Amino acid sequence: MKKTVKDYIRTIADFPHEGIMFRDVTTLFADARGFRMAVDQLLHPFAGQRIDKVVGLEARGFILGGAVAHQLATGFVPIRKKGKLPGAVISQAYKLEYGEAVMEIHDDALQPGEKVLIVDDLLATGGTCEAAIKLCERLGAEVVGCAFVVDLPELGGHRLLEQMGMNVHVLCEFEGS
Amino acid sequence: MKKTVKDYIRTIADFPHEGIMFRDVTTLFADARGFRMAVDQLLHPFAGQRIDKVVGLEARGFILGGAVAHQLATGFVPIRKKGKLPGAVISQAYKLEYGEAVMEIHDDALQPGEKVLIVDDLLATGGTCEAAIKLCERLGAEVVGCAFVVDLPELGGHRLLEQMGMNVHVLCEFEGS
Repeated sequence: MKKTVKDYIRTIADFPHEGIMFRDVTTLFADARGFRMAVDQLLHPFAGQRIDKVVGLEARGFILGGAVAHQLATGFVPIRKKGKLPGAVISQAYKLEYGEAVMEIHDDALQPGEKVLIVDDLLATGGTCEAAIKLCERLGAEVVGCAFVVDLPELGGHRLLEQMGMNVHVLCEFEGS
Repeated sequence: MKKTVKDYIRTIADFPHEGIMFRDVTTLFADARGFRMAVDQLLHPFAGQRIDKVVGLEARGFILGGAVAHQLATGFVPIRKKGKLPGAVISQAYKLEYGEAVMEIHDDALQPGEKVLIVDDLLATGGTCEAAIKLCERLGAEVVGCAFVVDLPELGGHRLLEQMGMNVHVLCEFEGS
Protein backbone atom coordinates (compact mmCIF):
# COMPACT_ATOMS: atom_id res chain seq x y z
CA MET A 1 0.00 0.00 0.00
CA LYS A 2 1.47 3.32 -1.09
CA LYS A 3 1.02 5.93 1.59
CA THR A 4 3.19 8.90 0.65
CA VAL A 5 4.04 10.77 -2.53
CA LYS A 6 7.54 9.29 -2.33
CA ASP A 7 6.14 5.76 -2.44
CA TYR A 8 4.77 6.41 -5.95
CA ILE A 9 8.10 7.59 -7.41
CA ARG A 10 10.26 4.98 -9.08
CA THR A 11 14.00 5.11 -9.59
CA ILE A 12 15.56 4.20 -12.93
CA ALA A 13 19.30 3.57 -12.95
CA ASP A 14 21.60 5.07 -15.59
CA PHE A 15 19.12 7.52 -17.21
CA PRO A 16 19.79 9.75 -19.06
CA HIS A 17 23.36 8.49 -18.76
CA GLU A 18 25.44 6.06 -16.72
CA GLY A 19 25.70 6.73 -13.01
CA ILE A 20 22.50 8.79 -12.71
CA MET A 21 19.70 7.45 -10.51
CA PHE A 22 16.72 9.07 -12.26
CA ARG A 23 13.73 9.81 -10.03
CA ASP A 24 10.73 9.12 -12.27
CA VAL A 25 7.54 10.98 -11.30
CA THR A 26 5.45 9.56 -14.18
CA THR A 27 4.39 6.68 -11.92
CA LEU A 28 3.15 9.26 -9.40
CA PHE A 29 1.26 11.27 -12.04
CA ALA A 30 -0.31 8.12 -13.55
CA ASP A 31 -1.96 7.19 -10.25
CA ALA A 32 -5.17 9.13 -9.55
CA ARG A 33 -4.64 9.15 -5.80
CA GLY A 34 -0.92 9.94 -6.05
CA PHE A 35 -1.42 12.78 -8.52
CA ARG A 36 -4.11 14.41 -6.39
CA MET A 37 -2.01 14.00 -3.24
CA ALA A 38 0.96 15.67 -4.95
CA VAL A 39 -1.12 18.66 -6.08
CA ASP A 40 -2.74 19.06 -2.66
CA GLN A 41 0.58 18.84 -0.83
CA LEU A 42 2.33 21.24 -3.21
CA LEU A 43 -0.30 23.86 -2.36
CA HIS A 44 -0.61 23.15 1.36
CA PRO A 45 1.84 25.83 2.62
CA PHE A 46 0.33 28.48 0.36
CA ALA A 47 -3.27 28.09 1.56
CA GLY A 48 -4.89 31.48 2.03
CA GLN A 49 -2.10 33.34 0.19
CA ARG A 50 -2.84 35.38 -2.89
CA ILE A 51 -1.52 33.66 -6.02
CA ASP A 52 -2.33 35.24 -9.40
CA LYS A 53 -0.48 32.90 -11.74
CA VAL A 54 1.13 29.49 -11.66
CA VAL A 55 4.40 29.28 -13.62
CA GLY A 56 5.48 25.82 -14.79
CA LEU A 57 8.90 24.83 -16.14
CA GLU A 58 9.21 22.73 -19.30
CA ALA A 59 8.28 19.91 -19.54
CA ARG A 60 7.22 17.91 -16.47
CA GLY A 61 6.45 21.16 -14.66
CA PHE A 62 3.71 21.70 -17.25
CA ILE A 63 1.80 18.62 -16.04
CA LEU A 64 1.95 19.65 -12.39
CA GLY A 65 1.52 23.33 -13.14
CA GLY A 66 -1.60 22.75 -15.21
CA ALA A 67 -3.16 20.80 -12.35
CA VAL A 68 -2.06 23.29 -9.68
CA ALA A 69 -3.41 26.25 -11.69
CA HIS A 70 -6.68 24.38 -12.15
CA GLN A 71 -6.96 23.70 -8.42
CA LEU A 72 -6.23 27.36 -7.60
CA ALA A 73 -8.47 28.62 -10.42
CA THR A 74 -5.62 30.81 -11.72
CA GLY A 75 -4.00 31.16 -15.12
CA PHE A 76 -0.92 29.14 -16.13
CA VAL A 77 2.26 30.58 -17.66
CA PRO A 78 4.96 28.38 -19.24
CA ILE A 79 8.70 29.00 -19.06
CA ARG A 80 10.33 27.16 -21.95
CA LYS A 81 13.67 26.35 -23.49
CA LYS A 82 14.99 28.82 -26.04
CA GLY A 83 13.05 29.12 -29.28
CA LYS A 84 9.87 27.31 -28.24
CA LEU A 85 7.62 30.28 -27.36
CA PRO A 86 6.07 31.97 -30.40
CA GLY A 87 5.66 35.54 -29.12
CA ALA A 88 8.09 38.22 -27.97
CA VAL A 89 10.15 36.86 -25.06
CA ILE A 90 12.78 37.78 -22.52
CA SER A 91 15.62 35.28 -22.01
CA GLN A 92 17.76 34.18 -19.11
CA ALA A 93 20.90 32.04 -19.40
CA TYR A 94 21.97 29.59 -16.68
CA LYS A 95 24.92 27.27 -16.21
CA LEU A 96 24.86 23.55 -16.89
CA GLU A 97 27.55 21.07 -15.88
CA TYR A 98 29.13 21.75 -19.27
CA GLY A 99 28.13 24.97 -21.02
CA GLU A 100 24.91 26.87 -20.53
CA ALA A 101 21.24 26.87 -21.47
CA VAL A 102 18.61 29.56 -21.91
CA MET A 103 15.03 29.75 -20.57
CA GLU A 104 12.40 32.13 -21.93
CA ILE A 105 9.07 33.66 -20.94
CA HIS A 106 6.65 35.72 -23.03
CA ASP A 107 7.31 39.35 -22.22
CA ASP A 108 3.59 40.01 -21.60
CA ALA A 109 2.88 36.83 -19.63
CA LEU A 110 3.08 38.46 -16.18
CA GLN A 111 2.05 41.91 -15.01
CA PRO A 112 3.95 44.04 -12.47
CA GLY A 113 2.82 43.19 -8.94
CA GLU A 114 1.35 39.79 -9.80
CA LYS A 115 2.01 37.03 -7.27
CA VAL A 116 3.49 33.91 -8.82
CA LEU A 117 3.99 30.31 -7.68
CA ILE A 118 6.71 28.41 -9.60
CA VAL A 119 6.14 24.65 -9.95
CA ASP A 120 8.44 21.88 -11.18
CA ASP A 121 8.86 18.18 -10.59
CA LEU A 122 12.45 18.13 -9.32
CA LEU A 123 14.95 20.43 -7.59
CA ALA A 124 18.58 19.50 -8.31
CA THR A 125 21.19 22.28 -8.74
CA GLY A 126 18.43 24.91 -8.87
CA GLY A 127 19.84 26.49 -12.04
CA THR A 128 16.63 26.27 -14.04
CA CYS A 129 14.51 27.59 -11.19
CA GLU A 130 16.95 30.43 -10.50
CA ALA A 131 16.61 31.49 -14.15
CA ALA A 132 12.81 31.21 -13.86
CA ILE A 133 12.74 33.40 -10.76
CA LYS A 134 14.83 36.04 -12.53
CA LEU A 135 12.49 35.98 -15.54
CA CYS A 136 9.41 36.47 -13.33
CA GLU A 137 11.07 39.27 -11.38
CA ARG A 138 12.29 41.02 -14.55
CA LEU A 139 8.61 41.25 -15.57
CA GLY A 140 7.84 42.86 -12.20
CA ALA A 141 6.07 39.86 -10.67
CA GLU A 142 6.69 38.63 -7.13
CA VAL A 143 7.57 34.96 -6.66
CA VAL A 144 5.73 33.86 -3.51
CA GLY A 145 7.17 30.35 -3.59
CA CYS A 146 8.83 27.53 -5.52
CA ALA A 147 7.24 24.09 -5.10
CA PHE A 148 8.79 20.77 -6.16
CA VAL A 149 7.81 17.14 -5.78
CA VAL A 150 11.39 15.86 -5.42
CA ASP A 151 14.43 17.47 -3.79
CA LEU A 152 17.99 16.22 -4.30
CA PRO A 153 19.51 18.24 -1.45
CA GLU A 154 23.10 17.10 -2.10
CA LEU A 155 23.04 19.02 -5.39
CA GLY A 156 22.57 22.32 -3.57
CA GLY A 157 19.53 23.77 -5.29
CA HIS A 158 17.46 24.00 -2.13
CA ARG A 159 20.22 25.98 -0.38
CA LEU A 160 20.74 28.20 -3.44
CA LEU A 161 17.06 29.18 -3.67
CA GLU A 162 16.83 29.83 0.07
CA GLN A 163 19.90 32.06 -0.17
CA MET A 164 17.96 34.05 -2.78
CA GLY A 165 15.29 34.57 -0.10
CA MET A 166 12.84 32.15 -1.70
CA ASN A 167 10.11 30.20 0.06
CA VAL A 168 11.02 26.67 -1.09
CA HIS A 169 8.61 23.78 -0.63
CA VAL A 170 9.46 20.14 -1.45
CA LEU A 171 7.41 16.99 -0.90
CA CYS A 172 10.22 14.46 -0.52
CA GLU A 173 13.99 14.04 -0.69
CA PHE A 174 16.24 11.49 -2.32
CA GLU A 175 19.94 10.96 -1.70
CA GLY A 176 22.49 11.15 -4.50
CA SER A 177 22.22 12.69 -7.93
CA MET B 1 -14.75 41.42 -23.42
CA LYS B 2 -13.58 37.92 -24.34
CA LYS B 3 -16.51 35.53 -24.49
CA THR B 4 -15.28 32.36 -26.12
CA VAL B 5 -12.16 30.20 -25.91
CA LYS B 6 -11.25 31.38 -29.42
CA ASP B 7 -11.22 35.01 -28.27
CA TYR B 8 -8.30 34.26 -25.92
CA ILE B 9 -6.08 32.69 -28.62
CA ARG B 10 -3.65 34.98 -30.39
CA THR B 11 -2.13 34.52 -33.81
CA ILE B 12 1.57 35.07 -34.40
CA ALA B 13 2.68 35.38 -38.01
CA ASP B 14 5.72 33.52 -39.37
CA PHE B 15 6.36 31.20 -36.42
CA PRO B 16 8.14 28.79 -36.35
CA HIS B 17 8.95 29.78 -39.94
CA GLU B 18 7.78 32.12 -42.67
CA GLY B 19 4.25 31.67 -43.93
CA ILE B 20 2.91 29.91 -40.81
CA MET B 21 0.13 31.62 -38.85
CA PHE B 22 0.83 30.18 -35.38
CA ARG B 23 -2.21 29.83 -33.10
CA ASP B 24 -0.83 30.62 -29.65
CA VAL B 25 -2.81 29.13 -26.77
CA THR B 26 -0.51 30.53 -24.05
CA THR B 27 -2.72 33.63 -23.85
CA LEU B 28 -5.70 31.34 -23.22
CA PHE B 29 -3.89 29.34 -20.54
CA ALA B 30 -2.61 32.50 -18.80
CA ASP B 31 -6.13 33.77 -18.20
CA ALA B 32 -7.86 32.17 -15.20
CA ARG B 33 -11.31 32.34 -16.80
CA GLY B 34 -10.08 31.25 -20.22
CA PHE B 35 -8.11 28.29 -18.87
CA ARG B 36 -11.04 27.02 -16.80
CA MET B 37 -13.44 27.48 -19.72
CA ALA B 38 -11.12 25.45 -21.98
CA VAL B 39 -10.87 22.57 -19.48
CA ASP B 40 -14.63 22.54 -18.86
CA GLN B 41 -15.45 22.60 -22.57
CA LEU B 42 -12.89 19.90 -23.42
CA LEU B 43 -14.65 17.58 -20.99
CA HIS B 44 -18.24 18.53 -21.77
CA PRO B 45 -19.03 15.76 -24.32
CA PHE B 46 -17.48 13.10 -22.07
CA ALA B 47 -19.59 13.87 -18.98
CA GLY B 48 -20.79 10.67 -17.36
CA GLN B 49 -18.44 8.46 -19.38
CA ARG B 50 -15.86 6.30 -17.67
CA ILE B 51 -12.35 7.69 -18.14
CA ASP B 52 -9.48 5.98 -16.30
CA LYS B 53 -6.51 7.99 -17.57
CA VAL B 54 -5.86 11.26 -19.35
CA VAL B 55 -3.05 11.06 -21.93
CA GLY B 56 -1.32 14.34 -22.85
CA LEU B 57 0.98 14.92 -25.80
CA GLU B 58 4.29 16.76 -25.35
CA ALA B 59 4.53 19.63 -24.56
CA ARG B 60 1.44 21.92 -24.54
CA GLY B 61 -0.78 18.88 -24.13
CA PHE B 62 0.88 18.40 -20.73
CA ILE B 63 -0.55 21.71 -19.45
CA LEU B 64 -4.08 20.92 -20.55
CA GLY B 65 -3.79 17.25 -19.69
CA GLY B 66 -2.63 17.96 -16.15
CA ALA B 67 -5.63 20.22 -15.60
CA VAL B 68 -8.10 17.83 -17.25
CA ALA B 69 -6.80 14.86 -15.19
CA HIS B 70 -7.11 16.98 -12.06
CA GLN B 71 -10.70 17.91 -12.90
CA LEU B 72 -11.60 14.26 -13.59
CA ALA B 73 -9.63 13.01 -10.57
CA THR B 74 -7.79 10.51 -12.78
CA GLY B 75 -4.10 9.82 -13.34
CA PHE B 76 -2.13 11.49 -16.14
CA VAL B 77 0.10 9.69 -18.66
CA PRO B 78 2.55 11.53 -20.93
CA ILE B 79 3.35 10.61 -24.52
CA ARG B 80 6.74 12.11 -25.37
CA LYS B 81 9.20 12.51 -28.18
CA LYS B 82 11.82 9.78 -28.55
CA GLY B 83 14.37 9.45 -25.75
CA LYS B 84 12.62 11.59 -23.13
CA LEU B 85 10.90 8.90 -21.03
CA PRO B 86 13.22 7.15 -18.57
CA GLY B 87 11.59 3.72 -18.31
CA ALA B 88 10.92 0.92 -20.80
CA VAL B 89 8.83 2.28 -23.68
CA ILE B 90 7.04 1.30 -26.86
CA SER B 91 7.57 3.58 -29.89
CA GLN B 92 5.48 4.67 -32.85
CA ALA B 93 6.82 6.52 -35.90
CA TYR B 94 4.74 9.04 -37.83
CA LYS B 95 5.29 11.13 -40.95
CA LEU B 96 6.27 14.78 -40.94
CA GLU B 97 6.27 17.09 -43.96
CA TYR B 98 9.89 16.07 -44.43
CA GLY B 99 11.01 12.82 -42.81
CA GLU B 100 9.48 11.23 -39.74
CA ALA B 101 9.35 11.49 -35.96
CA VAL B 102 8.79 9.01 -33.14
CA MET B 103 6.50 9.23 -30.09
CA GLU B 104 6.88 6.99 -27.04
CA ILE B 105 4.86 5.82 -24.03
CA HIS B 106 6.02 3.86 -20.98
CA ASP B 107 5.12 0.22 -21.62
CA ASP B 108 3.44 -0.07 -18.19
CA ALA B 109 1.61 3.30 -18.28
CA LEU B 110 -1.77 1.88 -19.33
CA GLN B 111 -3.46 -1.40 -18.47
CA PRO B 112 -5.56 -3.51 -20.86
CA GLY B 113 -9.18 -2.34 -20.84
CA GLU B 114 -8.46 1.11 -19.42
CA LYS B 115 -10.47 3.96 -20.96
CA VAL B 116 -8.29 6.83 -22.13
CA LEU B 117 -8.93 10.45 -23.16
CA ILE B 118 -6.18 11.99 -25.34
CA VAL B 119 -5.69 15.74 -24.93
CA ASP B 120 -3.62 18.21 -26.96
CA ASP B 121 -3.75 21.89 -27.78
CA LEU B 122 -3.97 21.71 -31.57
CA LEU B 123 -5.12 19.33 -34.30
CA ALA B 124 -3.34 19.88 -37.62
CA THR B 125 -2.44 16.89 -39.82
CA GLY B 126 -3.30 14.51 -36.98
CA GLY B 127 -0.03 12.60 -37.33
CA THR B 128 1.01 12.97 -33.70
CA CYS B 129 -2.42 12.02 -32.41
CA GLU B 130 -2.65 9.04 -34.74
CA ALA B 131 0.65 7.78 -33.31
CA ALA B 132 -0.66 8.40 -29.77
CA ILE B 133 -3.84 6.41 -30.46
CA LYS B 134 -1.78 3.50 -31.79
CA LEU B 135 0.46 3.58 -28.69
CA CYS B 136 -2.55 3.49 -26.34
CA GLU B 137 -4.21 0.69 -28.31
CA ARG B 138 -0.99 -1.35 -28.45
CA LEU B 139 -1.06 -1.33 -24.62
CA GLY B 140 -4.63 -2.65 -24.74
CA ALA B 141 -6.32 0.58 -23.68
CA GLU B 142 -9.43 1.97 -25.36
CA VAL B 143 -9.34 5.58 -26.59
CA VAL B 144 -12.76 7.03 -25.79
CA GLY B 145 -11.97 10.40 -27.36
CA CYS B 146 -9.41 12.94 -28.58
CA ALA B 147 -9.96 16.53 -27.39
CA PHE B 148 -8.23 19.62 -28.79
CA VAL B 149 -8.55 23.34 -28.19
CA VAL B 150 -7.79 24.33 -31.80
CA ASP B 151 -8.64 22.58 -35.06
CA LEU B 152 -7.05 23.48 -38.40
CA PRO B 153 -9.53 21.52 -40.55
CA GLU B 154 -7.80 22.31 -43.86
CA LEU B 155 -4.84 20.19 -42.74
CA GLY B 156 -7.00 17.07 -42.61
CA GLY B 157 -6.33 15.78 -39.10
CA HIS B 158 -9.97 15.92 -38.02
CA ARG B 159 -11.02 13.84 -41.02
CA LEU B 160 -8.14 11.38 -40.53
CA LEU B 161 -9.03 10.71 -36.89
CA GLU B 162 -12.74 10.33 -37.68
CA GLN B 163 -11.85 7.84 -40.41
CA MET B 164 -10.06 5.87 -37.67
CA GLY B 165 -13.42 5.75 -35.86
CA MET B 166 -12.37 8.24 -33.21
CA ASN B 167 -14.64 10.53 -31.22
CA VAL B 168 -12.98 13.89 -31.99
CA HIS B 169 -13.84 17.01 -29.98
CA VAL B 170 -12.50 20.49 -30.80
CA LEU B 171 -13.32 23.85 -29.20
CA CYS B 172 -12.68 26.14 -32.16
CA GLU B 173 -11.43 26.23 -35.74
CA PHE B 174 -9.01 28.47 -37.61
CA GLU B 175 -8.52 28.71 -41.34
CA GLY B 176 -5.18 28.09 -43.00
CA SER B 177 -2.10 26.41 -41.63
